[in-house]
Amino acid sequence: MKSLIEKIRSEGEAIGTQIVKVDGFVNHQIDVAFMMEMGQEFRIRFGDVQVDKILTVEASGIAIACMTSVAFGYPRVVFAKKMVPSTMVDGFYEAEAKSFTKGTVSMLRVSKKFLEPKDRVLIVDDFLAHGEAAMAMADIVQQAGASIVGFGIVIEKAFQGGGDKLRQAGYPVESLAVIDKIEDGVIFFNSEQ
Amino acid sequence: MKSLIEKIRSEGEAIGTQIVKVDGFVNHQIDVAFMMEMGQEFRIRFGDVQVDKILTVEASGIAIACMTSVAFGYPRVVFAKKMVPSTMVDGFYEAEAKSFTKGTVSMLRVSKKFLEPKDRVLIVDDFLAHGEAAMAMADIVQQAGASIVGFGIVIEKAFQGGGDKLRQAGYPVESLAVIDKIEDGVIFFNSEQ
Repeated sequence: MKSLIEKIRSEGEAIGTQIVKVDGFVNHQIDVAFMMEMGQEFRIRFGDVQVDKILTVEASGIAIACMTSVAFGYPRVVFAKKMVPSTMVDGFYEAEAKSFTKGTVSMLRVSKKFLEPKDRVLIVDDFLAHGEAAMAMADIVQQAGASIVGFGIVIEKAFQGGGDKLRQAGYPVESLAVIDKIEDGVIFFNSEQ
Repeated sequence: MKSLIEKIRSEGEAIGTQIVKVDGFVNHQIDVAFMMEMGQEFRIRFGDVQVDKILTVEASGIAIACMTSVAFGYPRVVFAKKMVPSTMVDGFYEAEAKSFTKGTVSMLRVSKKFLEPKDRVLIVDDFLAHGEAAMAMADIVQQAGASIVGFGIVIEKAFQGGGDKLRQAGYPVESLAVIDKIEDGVIFFNSEQ
């Protein structure tokens, strides 16, 4: 998505060789109008596939998931939790996800009542890096016996391998910007997008 | 907001005397279409006031903040963070907020670059209970020298005193559902709304 690549070039920032900082419009401050455009782009790319639920993970996936819901005619959004809230007393599905950026391991959890076998689930997130959160969400959808429509990703860091993992597992993956490498403060985007 | 009260009655659940569980449409599964209606209701209640930024706190405030942004013509949303991300290397404003539900204390943080003295800020959240998160966000806006348009709250638990605190401090507070008490599994809504 050309406008996203331009926005990352003008507003994003490379940190070292692994991190792209987009806190000005994605994951601290949110440009909601632009999120709406990205949601519509997912709709175009996935076509007229039926989506019953959009699954993401707190916190920074919530905005893009909500705006994607608007574009798909308002399916419910479900966000996986990293902490068990005191009110989460019913059963839940869970799967482990490592964060290489933060050096932590989270357990992602989704209440059983919000995923049903009949659900066709689009998984959405702001970043796809090593694919840990994405694979954990896929695991949760499978535990529920629901089906995965595909993955809608804002920024894929292809050099960290998560996209390869998902595609090799047979999932459709649509990434709006694919980064091949980060070197000397320069972000190199994949030319085939 | 009558439709919200009806929705809490039909889909919400009282837990003990302090907690209302609305994880089916607010803070685990999200009904985005209904969030859009609630955002429009905030716009009606606050009228034509200028809003430059919408401030909330992760994670469950993000959805209502985004849909409120749509209703107000897409001002940027900023969500306060409870953890310092590894990429948050610039200066930030911070303020402490206790959670009575979780029995924890969080430090809320917002990067200095996302709040400017000229900003007119609408603070939005899913719940107003003891007012700890709300007061912390107000503190952060004041540290930035920005001004507070008011507070837009989905569910105010009036018996926990946060709304009183904010109104006594002179802030306009618009709560879409106000709960006076919870008793024997029954939620009592304030009749003056």
